[in-house]
Amino acid sequence: MADLYVALLHHPVYDKTGAVVTTAVTNLDVHDIARLACTFDVRAFYVCTPVHTLRRLVARIIRHWDVGPGSTYNATRREALALVRQAPEMDAAIAEIERETGQLPRLVATSARGGPTRLSHAALRARLAAPGPPELLLFGTGWGLTKDVLERVHDVLEPIEGSGPYNHLSVRAAAAIVLDRLRNGR
Amino acid sequence: MADLYVALLHHPVYDKTGAVVTTAVTNLDVHDIARLACTFDVRAFYVCTPVHTLRRLVARIIRHWDVGPGSTYNATRREALALVRQAPEMDAAIAEIERETGQLPRLVATSARGGPTRLSHAALRARLAAPGPPELLLFGTGWGLTKDVLERVHDVLEPIEGSGPYNHLSVRAAAAIVLDRLRNGR
Repeated sequence: MADLYVALLHHPVYDKTGAVVTTAVTNLDVHDIARLACTFDVRAFYVCTPVHTLRRLVARIIRHWDVGPGSTYNATRREALALVRQAPEMDAAIAEIERETGQLPRLVATSARGGPTRLSHAALRARLAAPGPPELLLFGTGWGLTKDVLERVHDVLEPIEGSGPYNHLSVRAAAAIVLDRLRNGR
Repeated sequence: MADLYVALLHHPVYDKTGAVVTTAVTNLDVHDIARLACTFDVRAFYVCTPVHTLRRLVARIIRHWDVGPGSTYNATRREALALVRQAPEMDAAIAEIERETGQLPRLVATSARGGPTRLSHAALRARLAAPGPPELLLFGTGWGLTKDVLERVHDVLEPIEGSGPYNHLSVRAAAAIVLDRLRNGR
């Protein structure tokens, strides 16, 4: 089985006007995606932000649940947050995955927008089930990953289709659905 | 097609010691599940809490996005939050659904714990695709719906299985996975 990694990028992402911005880290993103990572066999979850102060905040959140009061209050949260790593940017996460596995990860971006050559969840599930290089699944915050990121990756995953045209899920909800599909099939 | 409703119960639910408690309303639960409801054709999403002050808080959140500054800042959020309704308890939601549809809803609880007669996602998906009474899908906060609720419902949905024994998803993530399975099949 190929190793699966997840990264949540806070830069570079769009805001709603299409400007490239850096979003703030959301505490519940860290918790929810860490719990998903623990549930669906993700080797590590990278919170990527170039903002040093926000990395310090995330370190403090992790410490609270690892060795602080949270560690005895809720051990299941500690187990999940143990999968969280930090990186100033995507490339630092890629370099760390290469050091850990000996191989450069394949980069798979997610996007709420469709396009001509989207990778299906089933195809990525099949890749994960076979031997191969690690896969790094990229989620964007704000209004999504920028064109520069999408042009750099090996694949863009197909968007999650709803029952109608509405496609404005939270990144937490999108990560839940994608990981369930990758691990539990469809 | 049968109508699908969702309710998020803040009482009666367990805390981690097994005591029956009332949990606080989490702002991001309201947003995330409203956005899921809008994506996956849920007719209404009931936030149920007996605490009057918290119902006032939720009303204020909805108002912010409906007619306040949020309505022009992000119209997609307004569209999702228009599906949010409030009820002091499950029975008030049931009564309102009966008034709206002319039929008592079937009650389907969700639980992270397995059991002998769990309803599969596929079976509920088939029920929703056929004509029939409305279905009210119940999610618990805290450490889950109490035994009293589980004994009252018509069905309990099968738990979401991960890749290992860890089963501590956030209610937001669980709702995302369940609704995707009910609408997009498996």
